[in-house]
Amino acid sequence: LTTLLGKGGGPTAVIAQSLVGAILRARLLGTTARIYGALHGVQGIVNQDFVDLTDVPEEDLELVAKNPGAQLRSTRDKPDQVYCANILRVLQAHRISSFLYIGGNDTSETLRILSTQAAAIGYDLTCVHVPKTIDNDLVCNDHTPGYPSSARFVGHAFMGINRDVMSLPGVYIGVVMGRHAGWLTAASALAKEVDDDGPHLIYMPERDFDMQTFLRDVKAVYDRLGRCIVAVSEGVHDASGKPILHSFKDLDTDPHGNVRLSGTGALADFLSEQVKHSLGIQRVIGDTLGYLQRSFPDASDVDRREARMVGERAALYASLRRTGSVTINRIGDYKVDYGLVDLADVAGKTRVVPDAFISDSGTDVNEAFLRYLRPLVGSDFRRAYSLRAPAVPKILLE
Amino acid sequence: LTTLLGKGGGPTAVIAQSLVGAILRARLLGTTARIYGALHGVQGIVNQDFVDLTDVPEEDLELVAKNPGAQLRSTRDKPDQVYCANILRVLQAHRISSFLYIGGNDTSETLRILSTQAAAIGYDLTCVHVPKTIDNDLVCNDHTPGYPSSARFVGHAFMGINRDVMSLPGVYIGVVMGRHAGWLTAASALAKEVDDDGPHLIYMPERDFDMQTFLRDVKAVYDRLGRCIVAVSEGVHDASGKPILHSFKDLDTDPHGNVRLSGTGALADFLSEQVKHSLGIQRVIGDTLGYLQRSFPDASDVDRREARMVGERAALYASLRRTGSVTINRIGDYKVDYGLVDLADVAGKTRVVPDAFISDSGTDVNEAFLRYLRPLVGSDFRRAYSLRAPAVPKILLE
Repeated sequence: LTTLLGKGGGPTAVIAQSLVGAILRARLLGTTARIYGALHGVQGIVNQDFVDLTDVPEEDLELVAKNPGAQLRSTRDKPDQVYCANILRVLQAHRISSFLYIGGNDTSETLRILSTQAAAIGYDLTCVHVPKTIDNDLVCNDHTPGYPSSARFVGHAFMGINRDVMSLPGVYIGVVMGRHAGWLTAASALAKEVDDDGPHLIYMPERDFDMQTFLRDVKAVYDRLGRCIVAVSEGVHDASGKPILHSFKDLDTDPHGNVRLSGTGALADFLSEQVKHSLGIQRVIGDTLGYLQRSFPDASDVDRREARMVGERAALYASLRRTGSVTINRIGDYKVDYGLVDLADVAGKTRVVPDAFISDSGTDVNEAFLRYLRPLVGSDFRRAYSLRAPAVPKILLE
Repeated sequence: LTTLLGKGGGPTAVIAQSLVGAILRARLLGTTARIYGALHGVQGIVNQDFVDLTDVPEEDLELVAKNPGAQLRSTRDKPDQVYCANILRVLQAHRISSFLYIGGNDTSETLRILSTQAAAIGYDLTCVHVPKTIDNDLVCNDHTPGYPSSARFVGHAFMGINRDVMSLPGVYIGVVMGRHAGWLTAASALAKEVDDDGPHLIYMPERDFDMQTFLRDVKAVYDRLGRCIVAVSEGVHDASGKPILHSFKDLDTDPHGNVRLSGTGALADFLSEQVKHSLGIQRVIGDTLGYLQRSFPDASDVDRREARMVGERAALYASLRRTGSVTINRIGDYKVDYGLVDLADVAGKTRVVPDAFISDSGTDVNEAFLRYLRPLVGSDFRRAYSLRAPAVPKILLE
């Protein structure tokens, strides 16, 4: 019997923890003779691009676990029925009994097709989905490994930006990853310590984006404070669902047919120009937080631990020959419990930020969201602290 | 006697350390009755916008010291003779005997004018320049507070990006701050652990940028490795000295008459489009590291300590009535010594990356530069670690 590990979709800061958790637990359980890794996910399977992880020293694995990114590489391939049949052919040839695939909801869908096809031909294959996505959009989960570390990065980023724009006033527009769900953009709110702290406006895909309302919002904050810090999801769209980025730029698509929203500063630059020209504000900065959000090597310790645990759980379920998707459920404030649900329950579904976490204005999150997020971002998440000192009376009179 | 503290130019992650160092040491020396802070630097002086720092509790100051950004706010104003005369008028009215100004070479120039004017009217004013700049371009210094923390951020950023692009191959172009000097862009080289690690190409303003050579360089790396990671200074320019960003975009200027290079993703997007269209590579990512580089709350411990020390030294020189610019000199590997040089020695000069640190190709730095940089970025700078495992023989033959 051989267990195969692989990884699909975008990397996170804690992928390697899940990988190492699965390897070490599988060794401990002793129900698998060999442990393989597929390079570049399903693409590596059809190419028989496997490495043998059975005897990699534990000391090496522990060093590997601390690194961001996907050590087994990844793929954007989204297999159809024919592609899956090719995968099965290779898995059978290599006598794979369990396939543990780390990824988001596309990954879960791939496993669902595979396990259905395997059952149809009487091939005893256990498929376990190990959850990860910085988008935090998997259903059946309180949150998803990878998200806490990215939220930590975004929170810290806006904490610094808040200080920066206080030093040299202006308008700052920061574009954050997130196509359909605003979870990561919402994390920018962690930067606030006092009422006037930024971000002052948060735009998520859960609400339609209207340019005139946006400009009015920015002007109101700027008039009041002399500065305005804005966090915007890359996926913000108009009332028809068309991405704002799409309204002025021809866009590339990825192999899934998704329009690519990351990898360009175009949205931030476009919004900056609008503010500059419509509101006549001189100092307007457009930053795009970019790929650092998912790969910066400063993971949340909570995220590291949970990513390790979902990997370990996947190995456990595989040893019990149970197919499904590993889940994280919150118990109290703050502990978690792990479980397993049907692949079909998770596959292809998207969980957006619920209304209960969004303020009435639609441009902020509320205290309930912050209570949800705070335990995730790490025990050493930084707190801002402002200097307070009395003003000195003026002496010279103009 | 009153000591005045202020801050000019862009913030850094460790400005507050210099501020707190100066306050606490001035208290200890006991040669000043009161300690004031000017809000928004020289702009705050002419507006008599002062806060009284004399009695802020040490516990509060220690919390403030850990924060990025300028707690006393900042300014881009670059005073001329008339502006400086107005400053002196206010300083005299408030009986300021020492002015400690934290900033880069523009700040040093302002102090030079002020001390000359003060001497001319017989006003006994001590002016001490406290060095800071993420650009690392002050002459008479081994390095400058603020740079080590920004270099740490850039090094960590490219370490994560290296993993990310290994997972999902393509071309990645990351634009780094730096107008005339490539010190910060060069720090991207810290991400390399093995030969094939990125960044594979580093473009600094110390070398002319030629588009055709750039495209040829990228193609050569991409053909060899299937991926290519590029770090580019925002200030790269053609042989005539014209910024590349300038060649396709009308640019804003700041009050110093400098063309603004930051706050837009335009350069990264422009270079990405060139690679996409000229080389026909599909996955090309353009990221601009942006304002996080100078404000991300993860300072180097070495930088924190040295920023504190230059603040303390400034207070010491002020108590000795010595005007000048505080310097950092390296002693061995690794210790530093602090000194004081004439304001005119530092004012308005720029130190670029020397040829001795740049590889012959002009698109990389050498081991001598890494030996220079490594001690600065912090005792806990992360090291990448790659998984190594034997390949599994293929079974199926196509």
